[in-house]
Amino acid sequence: MSLISSTMRKLSYGVYSILAMDGQRPTGCIVNTVFQITSQPAMVAISMNKDNYTYEVIKNSGRFSVSILSEESPRKVITNLGFTSGRDHDKLTELNYTMVDGLPVLEENCCGGFTCDVVSMTDAGTHMIILAAVKEATEGNSLPPMTYRYYHEVIKGGAPKNAPTYVPEEAEKPAEKEEVKYVCSICGYVHEGDIADEPEDYKCPICGVPKSMFNKA
Amino acid sequence: MSLISSTMRKLSYGVYSILAMDGQRPTGCIVNTVFQITSQPAMVAISMNKDNYTYEVIKNSGRFSVSILSEESPRKVITNLGFTSGRDHDKLTELNYTMVDGLPVLEENCCGGFTCDVVSMTDAGTHMIILAAVKEATEGNSLPPMTYRYYHEVIKGGAPKNAPTYVPEEAEKPAEKEEVKYVCSICGYVHEGDIADEPEDYKCPICGVPKSMFNKA
Repeated sequence: MSLISSTMRKLSYGVYSILAMDGQRPTGCIVNTVFQITSQPAMVAISMNKDNYTYEVIKNSGRFSVSILSEESPRKVITNLGFTSGRDHDKLTELNYTMVDGLPVLEENCCGGFTCDVVSMTDAGTHMIILAAVKEATEGNSLPPMTYRYYHEVIKGGAPKNAPTYVPEEAEKPAEKEEVKYVCSICGYVHEGDIADEPEDYKCPICGVPKSMFNKA
Repeated sequence: MSLISSTMRKLSYGVYSILAMDGQRPTGCIVNTVFQITSQPAMVAISMNKDNYTYEVIKNSGRFSVSILSEESPRKVITNLGFTSGRDHDKLTELNYTMVDGLPVLEENCCGGFTCDVVSMTDAGTHMIILAAVKEATEGNSLPPMTYRYYHEVIKGGAPKNAPTYVPEEAEKPAEKEEVKYVCSICGYVHEGDIADEPEDYKCPICGVPKSMFNKA
Protein backbone atom coordinates (compact mmCIF):
# COMPACT_ATOMS: atom_id res chain seq x y z
CA MET A 1 0.00 0.00 0.00
CA SER A 2 1.33 3.46 -0.85
CA LEU A 3 2.10 5.95 1.92
CA ILE A 4 -0.75 8.15 0.68
CA SER A 5 -3.23 5.24 0.95
CA SER A 6 -2.05 4.17 4.38
CA THR A 7 -2.13 7.76 5.67
CA MET A 8 -5.66 8.30 4.31
CA ARG A 9 -6.80 5.29 6.32
CA LYS A 10 -5.99 7.20 9.52
CA LEU A 11 -8.78 9.71 8.94
CA SER A 12 -11.71 9.12 11.31
CA TYR A 13 -15.26 8.36 10.22
CA GLY A 14 -18.57 7.05 11.50
CA VAL A 15 -20.81 4.43 9.91
CA TYR A 16 -24.15 5.59 8.51
CA SER A 17 -27.11 4.27 6.63
CA ILE A 18 -28.30 6.56 3.85
CA LEU A 19 -31.91 5.85 2.86
CA ALA A 20 -33.99 7.39 0.07
CA MET A 21 -37.25 6.82 -1.79
CA ASP A 22 -36.96 5.29 -5.26
CA GLY A 23 -40.48 6.28 -6.22
CA GLN A 24 -42.59 4.34 -3.72
CA ARG A 25 -39.76 1.93 -2.87
CA PRO A 26 -37.32 2.60 -0.02
CA THR A 27 -33.68 1.85 -0.77
CA GLY A 28 -30.30 2.85 0.58
CA CYS A 29 -26.69 2.05 1.33
CA ILE A 30 -23.94 2.34 3.93
CA VAL A 31 -21.45 5.23 3.90
CA ASN A 32 -18.72 6.44 6.22
CA THR A 33 -18.70 10.10 5.20
CA VAL A 34 -21.35 12.30 6.79
CA PHE A 35 -20.14 15.61 8.19
CA GLN A 36 -21.83 18.63 9.66
CA ILE A 37 -20.84 21.69 7.64
CA THR A 38 -22.90 24.49 9.19
CA SER A 39 -25.25 24.88 12.13
CA GLN A 40 -27.13 28.03 11.05
CA PRO A 41 -28.90 26.53 9.14
CA ALA A 42 -28.01 22.93 9.96
CA MET A 43 -26.35 21.41 6.89
CA VAL A 44 -24.36 18.23 6.34
CA ALA A 45 -22.25 16.94 3.46
CA ILE A 46 -22.07 13.32 2.37
CA SER A 47 -19.86 11.73 -0.28
CA MET A 48 -21.24 9.10 -2.66
CA ASN A 49 -19.82 7.09 -5.51
CA LYS A 50 -21.59 7.99 -8.74
CA ASP A 51 -21.96 4.28 -9.55
CA ASN A 52 -24.00 3.77 -6.41
CA TYR A 53 -27.70 3.24 -7.10
CA THR A 54 -28.67 5.28 -4.02
CA TYR A 55 -26.82 8.22 -5.55
CA GLU A 56 -29.07 8.00 -8.63
CA VAL A 57 -32.13 7.90 -6.41
CA ILE A 58 -30.97 10.95 -4.41
CA LYS A 59 -30.16 12.82 -7.63
CA ASN A 60 -33.71 12.18 -8.86
CA SER A 61 -35.59 12.76 -5.62
CA GLY A 62 -33.40 15.47 -4.06
CA ARG A 63 -33.88 13.91 -0.62
CA PHE A 64 -32.33 11.33 1.73
CA SER A 65 -32.11 10.37 5.37
CA VAL A 66 -29.12 9.58 7.57
CA SER A 67 -29.31 6.94 10.33
CA ILE A 68 -26.31 7.02 12.68
CA LEU A 69 -25.43 3.39 13.42
CA SER A 70 -24.63 2.66 17.04
CA GLU A 71 -22.00 0.26 18.32
CA GLU A 72 -24.35 -2.63 19.00
CA SER A 73 -25.54 -2.81 15.39
CA PRO A 74 -25.47 -6.41 14.18
CA ARG A 75 -23.46 -7.18 11.09
CA LYS A 76 -26.66 -7.92 9.16
CA VAL A 77 -27.60 -4.23 9.03
CA ILE A 78 -24.43 -3.49 7.12
CA THR A 79 -24.71 -6.73 5.14
CA ASN A 80 -28.31 -6.02 4.09
CA LEU A 81 -27.70 -2.42 3.14
CA GLY A 82 -24.15 -2.67 1.93
CA PHE A 83 -23.57 -5.98 0.19
CA THR A 84 -26.10 -5.76 -2.62
CA SER A 85 -27.24 -3.15 -5.12
CA GLY A 86 -30.61 -1.43 -4.64
CA ARG A 87 -30.96 -1.54 -8.41
CA ASP A 88 -32.20 -5.13 -8.34
CA HIS A 89 -32.78 -5.88 -4.68
CA ASP A 90 -35.20 -4.55 -2.04
CA LYS A 91 -32.70 -3.91 0.72
CA LEU A 92 -35.13 -2.90 3.42
CA THR A 93 -37.35 -5.98 3.55
CA GLU A 94 -35.45 -7.39 6.52
CA LEU A 95 -34.90 -4.12 8.38
CA ASN A 96 -37.33 -2.09 10.50
CA TYR A 97 -37.71 1.53 9.57
CA THR A 98 -40.13 4.35 10.21
CA MET A 99 -41.25 7.00 7.75
CA VAL A 100 -40.22 10.47 8.92
CA ASP A 101 -40.86 13.57 6.84
CA GLY A 102 -41.58 11.29 3.84
CA LEU A 103 -38.31 9.36 4.18
CA PRO A 104 -37.38 6.00 5.72
CA VAL A 105 -35.14 6.15 8.82
CA LEU A 106 -33.80 3.01 10.51
CA GLU A 107 -35.81 2.17 13.62
CA GLU A 108 -33.26 0.00 15.38
CA ASN A 109 -29.50 -0.10 15.80
CA CYS A 110 -29.01 3.62 15.49
CA CYS A 111 -28.47 6.40 17.99
CA GLY A 112 -30.24 9.03 15.94
CA GLY A 113 -31.25 10.01 12.45
CA PHE A 114 -32.32 12.95 10.37
CA THR A 115 -33.87 13.80 7.03
CA CYS A 116 -32.18 16.00 4.43
CA ASP A 117 -33.00 18.08 1.36
CA VAL A 118 -30.18 18.37 -1.18
CA VAL A 119 -28.80 21.92 -1.47
CA SER A 120 -25.98 21.39 -3.99
CA MET A 121 -23.80 18.70 -5.54
CA THR A 122 -20.08 19.07 -6.21
CA ASP A 123 -18.42 16.86 -8.78
CA ALA A 124 -15.33 15.10 -7.46
CA GLY A 125 -14.51 12.63 -10.23
CA THR A 126 -15.67 9.15 -9.20
CA HIS A 127 -17.67 10.65 -6.34
CA MET A 128 -20.14 13.46 -5.72
CA ILE A 129 -20.14 15.64 -2.59
CA ILE A 130 -23.76 16.27 -1.65
CA LEU A 131 -24.49 19.29 0.56
CA ALA A 132 -27.90 19.05 2.22
CA ALA A 133 -30.09 20.91 4.69
CA VAL A 134 -31.16 18.94 7.77
CA LYS A 135 -34.95 19.03 8.08
CA GLU A 136 -36.09 16.76 10.89
CA ALA A 137 -34.22 14.69 13.50
CA THR A 138 -35.28 11.46 15.19
CA GLU A 139 -34.23 10.09 18.54
CA GLY A 140 -32.37 6.81 18.67
CA ASN A 141 -30.84 4.61 21.32
CA SER A 142 -28.33 5.93 23.84
CA LEU A 143 -25.42 3.73 22.76
CA PRO A 144 -22.21 5.29 21.44
CA PRO A 145 -22.13 5.96 17.71
CA MET A 146 -20.22 3.34 15.75
CA THR A 147 -16.93 4.59 14.34
CA TYR A 148 -15.51 3.15 11.16
CA ARG A 149 -12.54 1.99 13.20
CA TYR A 150 -14.87 0.14 15.61
CA TYR A 151 -16.60 -1.47 12.65
CA HIS A 152 -13.25 -2.76 11.38
CA GLU A 153 -12.03 -3.95 14.75
CA VAL A 154 -15.20 -5.36 16.29
CA ILE A 155 -18.15 -5.83 13.95
CA LYS A 156 -16.28 -7.15 10.93
CA GLY A 157 -14.44 -9.55 13.19
CA GLY A 158 -17.85 -10.98 14.02
CA ALA A 159 -17.27 -10.88 17.78
CA PRO A 160 -19.07 -8.46 20.09
CA LYS A 161 -16.70 -6.29 22.10
CA ASN A 162 -17.51 -8.01 25.36
CA ALA A 163 -17.12 -11.52 23.98
CA PRO A 164 -14.00 -13.42 24.97
CA THR A 165 -13.15 -13.91 21.33
CA TYR A 166 -12.82 -10.16 20.82
CA VAL A 167 -9.20 -9.15 20.30
CA PRO A 168 -8.34 -5.47 19.90
CA GLU A 169 -6.30 -4.62 16.82
CA GLU A 170 -3.20 -3.82 18.87
CA ALA A 171 -3.09 -7.32 20.32
CA GLU A 172 -4.23 -9.19 17.24
CA LYS A 173 -2.11 -12.14 16.27
CA PRO A 174 -1.47 -13.11 12.65
CA ALA A 175 -4.07 -15.54 11.27
CA GLU A 176 -2.95 -19.14 11.50
CA LYS A 177 -3.74 -19.89 7.89
CA GLU A 178 -3.26 -17.41 5.10
CA GLU A 179 -6.46 -16.59 3.25
CA VAL A 180 -6.97 -14.51 0.17
CA LYS A 181 -8.16 -11.00 0.96
CA TYR A 182 -8.86 -7.97 -1.15
CA VAL A 183 -8.81 -4.45 0.25
CA CYS A 184 -10.93 -1.56 -0.98
CA SER A 185 -8.48 1.09 -2.14
CA ILE A 186 -10.83 3.86 -1.01
CA CYS A 187 -12.00 2.97 2.42
CA GLY A 188 -9.88 0.02 3.45
CA TYR A 189 -12.77 -2.44 3.69
CA VAL A 190 -11.39 -5.98 3.67
CA HIS A 191 -13.15 -8.49 1.44
CA GLU A 192 -12.51 -12.07 2.58
CA GLY A 193 -11.84 -14.31 -0.40
CA ASP A 194 -11.23 -13.65 -4.08
CA ILE A 195 -12.99 -10.51 -5.32
CA ALA A 196 -13.33 -12.20 -8.72
CA ASP A 197 -15.91 -14.54 -7.18
CA GLU A 198 -18.28 -11.63 -6.63
CA PRO A 199 -20.89 -10.63 -9.25
CA GLU A 200 -19.91 -8.01 -11.80
CA ASP A 201 -21.99 -5.30 -10.10
CA TYR A 202 -20.46 -5.98 -6.66
CA LYS A 203 -19.84 -2.78 -4.74
CA CYS A 204 -17.79 -2.11 -1.63
CA PRO A 205 -20.32 -2.42 1.19
CA ILE A 206 -18.96 0.66 2.88
CA CYS A 207 -18.07 3.21 0.25
CA GLY A 208 -19.79 1.78 -2.81
CA VAL A 209 -16.90 1.58 -5.27
CA PRO A 210 -16.90 -1.23 -7.88
CA LYS A 211 -14.76 -4.35 -7.51
CA SER A 212 -12.14 -2.93 -9.87
CA MET A 213 -11.12 -0.67 -6.98
CA PHE A 214 -10.07 -3.60 -4.77
CA ASN A 215 -6.45 -4.66 -4.51
CA LYS A 216 -5.14 -7.99 -3.31
CA ALA A 217 -3.96 -7.67 0.30
CA MET B 1 -30.27 21.90 22.89
CA SER B 2 -32.57 21.05 19.96
CA LEU B 3 -32.94 17.46 18.76
CA ILE B 4 -31.22 18.39 15.50
CA SER B 5 -28.20 19.81 17.39
CA SER B 6 -27.92 16.84 19.75
CA THR B 7 -28.23 14.37 16.86
CA MET B 8 -25.56 16.18 14.83
CA ARG B 9 -23.19 15.75 17.76
CA LYS B 10 -23.32 11.98 17.24
CA LEU B 11 -21.50 12.21 13.91
CA SER B 12 -17.90 10.96 14.18
CA TYR B 13 -14.83 13.02 13.38
CA GLY B 14 -11.08 13.13 13.81
CA VAL B 15 -8.94 16.04 14.98
CA TYR B 16 -6.61 17.62 12.45
CA SER B 17 -4.19 20.48 12.14
CA ILE B 18 -4.53 22.40 8.87
CA LEU B 19 -1.38 24.37 8.06
CA ALA B 20 -0.71 26.78 5.19
CA MET B 21 1.79 29.41 4.11
CA ASP B 22 0.75 33.02 4.56
CA GLY B 23 3.45 34.33 2.23
CA GLN B 24 6.63 33.27 4.03
CA ARG B 25 4.87 32.76 7.36
CA PRO B 26 3.40 29.40 8.38
CA THR B 27 -0.01 29.52 10.02
CA GLY B 28 -2.92 27.17 10.60
CA CYS B 29 -5.79 25.97 12.71
CA ILE B 30 -7.55 22.90 14.10
CA VAL B 31 -10.50 21.29 12.30
CA ASN B 32 -12.52 18.13 12.78
CA THR B 33 -13.70 17.71 9.19
CA VAL B 34 -11.24 16.05 6.83
CA PHE B 35 -12.54 13.18 4.77
CA GLN B 36 -11.35 11.20 1.80
CA ILE B 37 -13.57 11.65 -1.25
CA THR B 38 -11.79 9.67 -3.96
CA SER B 39 -8.76 7.42 -4.23
CA GLN B 40 -8.11 7.67 -7.97
CA PRO B 41 -6.78 10.32 -7.76
CA ALA B 42 -6.50 10.73 -3.98
CA MET B 43 -8.69 13.67 -2.98
CA VAL B 44 -9.96 14.92 0.36
CA ALA B 45 -12.51 17.53 1.39
CA ILE B 46 -12.24 19.81 4.39
CA SER B 47 -14.76 22.28 5.77
CA MET B 48 -13.68 25.69 6.99
CA ASN B 49 -15.46 28.68 8.45
CA LYS B 50 -15.09 31.66 6.12
CA ASP B 51 -14.17 33.87 9.10
CA ASN B 52 -11.15 31.69 9.81
CA TYR B 53 -7.87 33.36 8.87
CA THR B 54 -6.44 30.05 7.63
CA TYR B 55 -9.31 29.91 5.13
CA GLU B 56 -8.20 33.27 3.70
CA VAL B 57 -4.65 32.00 3.44
CA ILE B 58 -5.75 28.81 1.65
CA LYS B 59 -7.96 30.82 -0.71
CA ASN B 60 -4.97 32.98 -1.63
CA SER B 61 -2.31 30.27 -1.82
CA GLY B 62 -4.42 27.35 -3.09
CA ARG B 63 -2.52 24.95 -0.85
CA PHE B 64 -2.59 23.45 2.66
CA SER B 65 -1.38 20.47 4.66
CA VAL B 66 -3.24 18.11 6.98
CA SER B 67 -1.57 16.66 10.09
CA ILE B 68 -3.58 13.83 11.67
CA LEU B 69 -3.32 14.32 15.45
CA SER B 70 -2.73 11.15 17.40
CA GLU B 71 -4.16 10.29 20.80
CA GLU B 72 -1.15 11.29 22.84
CA SER B 73 -1.17 14.88 21.55
CA PRO B 74 -0.83 17.31 24.45
CA ARG B 75 -3.51 19.90 24.88
CA LYS B 76 -1.02 22.65 23.98
CA VAL B 77 -1.03 21.60 20.32
CA ILE B 78 -4.73 22.33 20.11
CA THR B 79 -4.38 25.39 22.35
CA ASN B 80 -1.57 26.87 20.25
CA LEU B 81 -3.26 26.26 16.94
CA GLY B 82 -6.87 26.65 17.96
CA PHE B 83 -7.18 29.30 20.62
CA THR B 84 -5.82 32.32 18.79
CA SER B 85 -6.18 33.85 15.33
CA GLY B 86 -3.34 33.53 12.83
CA ARG B 87 -4.22 37.05 11.72
CA ASP B 88 -2.25 38.61 14.56
CA HIS B 89 -0.34 35.72 16.11
CA ASP B 90 2.42 33.40 14.91
CA LYS B 91 0.88 30.13 15.95
CA LEU B 92 3.76 27.86 15.04
CA THR B 93 6.54 29.38 17.11
CA GLU B 94 6.09 26.82 19.88
CA LEU B 95 5.44 23.79 17.66
CA ASN B 96 7.88 21.68 15.67
CA TYR B 97 7.12 21.25 12.01
CA THR B 98 8.93 20.17 8.87
CA MET B 99 8.55 21.64 5.42
CA VAL B 100 7.18 19.07 2.95
CA ASP B 101 6.38 19.94 -0.65
CA GLY B 102 6.58 23.63 0.31
CA LEU B 103 4.15 23.30 3.21
CA PRO B 104 4.55 22.96 6.98
CA VAL B 105 3.46 19.62 8.46
CA LEU B 106 3.51 18.97 12.23
CA GLU B 107 6.56 16.94 13.23
CA GLU B 108 5.27 15.58 16.53
CA ASN B 109 1.97 14.38 17.96
CA CYS B 110 0.58 13.18 14.67
CA CYS B 111 0.27 9.77 13.07
CA GLY B 112 0.63 11.04 9.53
CA GLY B 113 0.20 14.04 7.32
CA PHE B 114 -0.17 15.07 3.71
CA THR B 115 -0.01 18.10 1.48
CA CYS B 116 -2.90 19.23 -0.72
CA ASP B 117 -3.62 21.41 -3.75
CA VAL B 118 -7.09 22.96 -3.83
CA VAL B 119 -9.28 21.60 -6.66
CA SER B 120 -12.56 23.41 -5.99
CA MET B 121 -14.45 25.31 -3.31
CA THR B 122 -18.17 24.92 -2.63
CA ASP B 123 -20.03 27.68 -0.84
CA ALA B 124 -22.03 26.43 2.14
CA GLY B 125 -23.12 29.66 3.83
CA THR B 126 -20.94 30.31 6.87
CA HIS B 127 -18.50 27.61 5.70
CA MET B 128 -16.67 26.58 2.56
CA ILE B 129 -16.16 22.96 1.50
CA ILE B 130 -12.67 22.71 0.02
CA LEU B 131 -11.97 19.77 -2.31
CA ALA B 132 -8.24 19.12 -2.71
CA ALA B 133 -5.86 16.70 -4.39
CA VAL B 134 -3.43 14.90 -2.06
CA LYS B 135 0.14 15.44 -3.28
CA GLU B 136 2.61 14.03 -0.77
CA ALA B 137 2.21 12.02 2.43
CA THR B 138 4.45 11.94 5.50
CA GLU B 139 4.88 9.19 8.06
CA GLY B 140 3.97 9.87 11.64
CA ASN B 141 3.93 7.96 14.89
CA SER B 142 2.13 4.63 15.24
CA LEU B 143 -0.39 5.78 17.86
CA PRO B 144 -4.12 5.66 17.11
CA PRO B 145 -5.54 8.75 15.46
CA MET B 146 -7.35 11.07 17.87
CA THR B 147 -11.09 11.12 17.41
CA TYR B 148 -13.11 14.19 18.24
CA ARG B 149 -14.90 12.11 20.87
CA TYR B 150 -11.56 11.17 22.43
CA TYR B 151 -10.58 14.82 22.47
CA HIS B 152 -13.76 15.69 24.35
CA GLU B 153 -13.51 12.83 26.80
CA VAL B 154 -9.80 12.68 27.47
CA ILE B 155 -7.76 15.65 26.28
CA LYS B 156 -10.15 18.40 27.20
CA GLY B 157 -10.54 16.88 30.63
CA GLY B 158 -6.80 17.44 31.02
CA ALA B 159 -6.16 13.90 32.23
CA PRO B 160 -4.29 11.30 30.19
CA LYS B 161 -6.31 8.14 29.57
CA ASN B 162 -4.14 6.07 31.86
CA ALA B 163 -4.16 8.52 34.73
CA PRO B 164 -6.29 7.62 37.73
CA THR B 165 -8.18 10.87 37.37
CA TYR B 166 -9.48 9.88 33.95
CA VAL B 167 -13.18 9.06 34.01
CA PRO B 168 -14.88 7.88 30.83
CA GLU B 169 -17.97 9.84 29.84
CA GLU B 170 -20.28 6.94 30.67
CA ALA B 171 -19.15 6.88 34.28
CA GLU B 172 -18.71 10.60 34.76
CA LYS B 173 -20.32 12.07 37.84
CA PRO B 174 -21.88 15.52 37.94
CA ALA B 175 -19.38 18.23 38.88
CA GLU B 176 -19.47 19.11 42.52
CA LYS B 177 -19.76 22.82 41.92
CA GLU B 178 -21.65 24.38 39.07
CA GLU B 179 -19.46 26.44 36.76
CA VAL B 180 -20.45 28.60 33.84
CA LYS B 181 -19.93 26.88 30.49
CA TYR B 182 -20.67 27.85 26.93
CA VAL B 183 -21.08 25.30 24.16
CA CYS B 184 -20.18 25.85 20.51
CA SER B 185 -23.41 25.37 18.57
CA ILE B 186 -21.52 23.90 15.62
CA CYS B 187 -19.12 21.37 17.03
CA GLY B 188 -20.08 21.04 20.67
CA TYR B 189 -16.78 22.35 22.02
CA VAL B 190 -17.26 23.34 25.66
CA HIS B 191 -15.78 26.66 26.74
CA GLU B 192 -15.20 26.78 30.49
CA GLY B 193 -16.24 30.15 31.91
CA ASP B 194 -18.14 33.08 30.48
CA ILE B 195 -17.62 33.47 26.73
CA ALA B 196 -18.03 37.25 27.20
CA ASP B 197 -14.62 37.28 28.92
CA GLU B 198 -12.92 36.27 25.66
CA PRO B 199 -11.59 38.87 23.21
CA GLU B 200 -13.91 40.01 20.42
CA ASP B 201 -12.07 37.97 17.80
CA TYR B 202 -12.23 34.75 19.84
CA LYS B 203 -12.91 31.71 17.68
CA CYS B 204 -13.96 28.20 18.61
CA PRO B 205 -10.62 26.33 18.87
CA ILE B 206 -12.08 23.37 16.97
CA CYS B 207 -14.31 24.64 14.22
CA GLY B 208 -13.39 28.30 14.10
CA VAL B 209 -16.77 29.96 14.54
CA PRO B 210 -16.97 33.33 16.36
CA LYS B 211 -18.11 33.62 19.98
CA SER B 212 -21.61 34.63 18.88
CA MET B 213 -22.12 30.97 17.96
CA PHE B 214 -21.72 29.83 21.58
CA ASN B 215 -24.74 29.14 23.77
CA LYS B 216 -24.78 28.98 27.56
CA ALA B 217 -24.79 25.34 28.66
